[in-house]
Order: sequence, then C-alpha cells, then structure tokens
Amino acid sequence: MKRTFVNGRAEATIDALDRGLQYGDGLFETIAVAGGRPRFLDWHFERLADGARRLGFPALDLDGLRREIQDAIVEPKAVVKLILTRGNGPRGYRPPRDARPTRIVAAFDWPAFSASAASDGVCVGWCHTRLGRNRSLAGLKHLNRLEQVLARAEWEDGAMDEGLMQDDRGRVIAATQANLFVRMAGQWVTPGLDECGVAGVMRRAFRQWAAERGDAIAERPIAAAELEDATCLILTNALIGAWPVRELAGRTLAVDPIAEEFNAWLARA
Amino acid sequence: MKRTFVNGRAEATIDALDRGLQYGDGLFETIAVAGGRPRFLDWHFERLADGARRLGFPALDLDGLRREIQDAIVEPKAVVKLILTRGNGPRGYRPPRDARPTRIVAAFDWPAFSASAASDGVCVGWCHTRLGRNRSLAGLKHLNRLEQVLARAEWEDGAMDEGLMQDDRGRVIAATQANLFVRMAGQWVTPGLDECGVAGVMRRAFRQWAAERGDAIAERPIAAAELEDATCLILTNALIGAWPVRELAGRTLAVDPIAEEFNAWLARA
Repeated sequence: MKRTFVNGRAEATIDALDRGLQYGDGLFETIAVAGGRPRFLDWHFERLADGARRLGFPALDLDGLRREIQDAIVEPKAVVKLILTRGNGPRGYRPPRDARPTRIVAAFDWPAFSASAASDGVCVGWCHTRLGRNRSLAGLKHLNRLEQVLARAEWEDGAMDEGLMQDDRGRVIAATQANLFVRMAGQWVTPGLDECGVAGVMRRAFRQWAAERGDAIAERPIAAAELEDATCLILTNALIGAWPVRELAGRTLAVDPIAEEFNAWLARA
Repeated sequence: MKRTFVNGRAEATIDALDRGLQYGDGLFETIAVAGGRPRFLDWHFERLADGARRLGFPALDLDGLRREIQDAIVEPKAVVKLILTRGNGPRGYRPPRDARPTRIVAAFDWPAFSASAASDGVCVGWCHTRLGRNRSLAGLKHLNRLEQVLARAEWEDGAMDEGLMQDDRGRVIAATQANLFVRMAGQWVTPGLDECGVAGVMRRAFRQWAAERGDAIAERPIAAAELEDATCLILTNALIGAWPVRELAGRTLAVDPIAEEFNAWLARA
C-alpha cells in the first residue's frame, strides 16, 4: 500500500466503533488508476451515490471525494480503494439520524496480473458457497462480503484463476470478484443482478462498448446448467478489464477475440 | 461507552485495512454483564468458536478472551461487545493463510430499556426488508448486518418497539435484534435458523429453561401468515431476556406469564 487517507487526513486507522466495522454499514469502490487518472470515476461515483441513497446515507460531496482520490494518487498506474461508511454511532442497528459518514481512500500498487490472462484466457471453476438473494442490497458494492470471502477461500492460488458463484436457486451470478458474460447460441448475455451480485463498472463499460459496435448484450437470469452450452465466457472487473475464460470446470472454451478488442479500446480510452 | 480494548490494549481505533471493515470478515457477541460477571459467557464463546471454525479463522484463545472481557468490566451492570475479525491482509477477498485475528472488546452502559417492556409487553410490526438465505452463514453472529440495519431504519423510535423480519420466501425468522417464540395451537415454536438468522444465546437459554420445565419448544419453519393464528409471541436477546409481545401489527396478543417467569429465573441465575 502507498497511502491511506481517512476523512481527508493521512491516517491509517479508524474508530473501532465505526459502523463500517460494526455492521458492514458502508460501500466501497475499487478504482483503476491509469496514466495517473482514476478510470471511469464518474461511473464509480454513480454507483456509490446510488448505494448511499439506498442505504439512507447523507448526500455525498463528490467534488471533495474526487480531490481526495486525486491526492492519493502518486503513481501513474495504481489502484485506489474508496470506502464510505455511515460513520460512528451508538450501539445498535438503528442508523443515527445525524450520520457523518467516514471516507477512507487507500492507494495500492497495481496487482501482478498474469500477462497471459487477457490474451490466452483464464481457468475458472464452480464455488460451493452460494449467494443469498436480497433485492434491497442487490447490485450495490457494499461492505457485507462474507459470501465472496468464503467462496474465495475454497481454492488455493494456482488451482484456478476465478470461481463462479450461483445464487441459492442455482442461477449463475458472477465470479467472486468479476462480472460474467456468456456466449450461448451465438449471443452474448450477462446475468441479471436484481436479486444479488454487484453491478460492476467494467460490466457497464463492456456492455456500452459492445452496444456501440451494434452488439447489444441482453441481461437475463442464467441457470448454472446453461453454461454447459456456453461457447465462450468473459470475466470483467475494474482492474482486469475483460479476461476470456479458456477453461470452465475442465471443459475447454473458445477464446473470443472480443475481450482483446475491448481491452485494446480500454487502453486507448 | 466506558472502555475499548484492541488486542488487549486500551485503544479506540483499528487499522483501516482490517478485514472486519473491508469485508465484514468477522464475528461479534453482545454480552450482558450482571453482578460484574459476563452472563452465559461459555455459550457466547461456543457460538464464537463455531463461527471462527466455519469462517476458517485460527483457533481462539478463549482464556485470553475471557481475561480481556473481565478486564473491560468496571460496572456491575453493563454490556460488553466483543468483535473478532480475521485481521489485516492484502487487498482482495482471499483470506490470508497466516491470519492474525483482531480482538475488540468494548464495554457500554446498560441500555435504558422501558421498565414495562418485560411485564406489560412490547409492540411489534413487520419490516419490509427481507433476509437473504445462505446456509454457509446461517446462525452466525457475523459482521454482515446490513439487512438488520435497513430493517431497523424503517421505523422511528416510539413508533414500535421491534420489527419482525421474513426471509425471501415469506418465512418469519426473527426480529431485527431478537429471536422469536410463537405460541400457536397451544404450543410454543421458534423459527428454524438453518438458512438465515442468528442463533441467539438467550434463545438457547429460553429453550433449555423451558425444556427443564417439561415444555420442549420445537424449531421449525414458520410462514409469516401463520402468525395470524398466534396467541402469544415472545422476543429474546442477550440483554432483554424475554419480552412478551402485546401487539403485533395492530392485533392484540395475550401476555403469557412465561416471559416473566423466565426473567425471574434469569435474575436469580
């Protein structure tokens, strides 16, 4: 890690009574920094503001957040993680009426992704841990992430690159830290996220880019069993861009050039 | 608040990179202190140890925790909240192999409960916010509590005393911060907690006390609609003991003396 700011001050600690710790009462954004600038920052802020509204946080000072993120950036290529909690409050679930949210901005080194992941594809398997469904929280990048933690604990580094997660009804939703695109019957589709999952910024970018090429990507519920008929899969997140999947639970998939085309566009953008 | 200890030291802050904050990757216990002693501490520790095992934390030093809890107690009547997180780690959901959990022990004043709640009963209504179901997390008192936060935000203090929560299939599970006992057809029953909800220590105490009186209380799925036929409801948690419900969504219920009998036993125990 390079630098951490809490409420705009260079600090590395938060109050032990912060509701972000006590209840996971908060939101986060993982932002790629490229050329010294936060990528898709407006879309990260849109999701954050939507989350703040749905959780009943006070309105955000986005200009202030933008400055704090920029201040944290000292390398041209980096990761900035922004956490916004409801701040401190008395014991108990009830949100305080006069909540004063806590802002945590932390800059990290760019991760050491495998160079071949974007070009040759990655290997994915199925996680046993399921995603519970809750329309009140679906789509948000909130701090209640134990499901992803348990899912990611299911395999050691090297055994596979990512794990796909299903909801409790057996619908595939996403990978532990990426959204999913599936090519079936000659069409790209992506799982609907109205009951669980995170509406990723790169998912949005990929869909918009595809739509501008004339390839509208439908969103719909996808049963896990349907992936047996998938010819290609793509994972997206804010840091990796798009990774093709070359192997799903031992079955070889085609590496569609669309991922590399998207990544090339992303590098130029 | 009276005192806070982090890893045994008198501190009020934790590292901003603690996984308890980053992902809600942790557990907590809310422990009543009566006569200067933590009540049902062994059962709190049983649940905590079960949670630590299910989340893949290292084995707990319960003797050390017991000392830290006792050290935090300066008043004969108080509340001790214990939080156990997976500790710090690099960015990403994957739990670090060498996790060193963070212990936070905070002592609070005993809450100002209404004196009549235990004797005359409380008013409850229905929350709109649902509980997602996940067998991997069911029963645990983990730090992913946004569902309870959103549910508790649905009413102002005074409008009602507690809110009942259903899962996504319309089964009643619990109140936002209490377990539930329902009297129907002359029998006490309590919702099963194998898919969601928290297995409360006072729920266990109430069932065991009832069983010792010859009143075994069955655990089973309870549809929310079944509560229309309920004659009595009781809420339990570690602090309140047992509260009878005198009104459910506008319908008057009988206040069963069993709650007061249990509370009297609890005061003597």
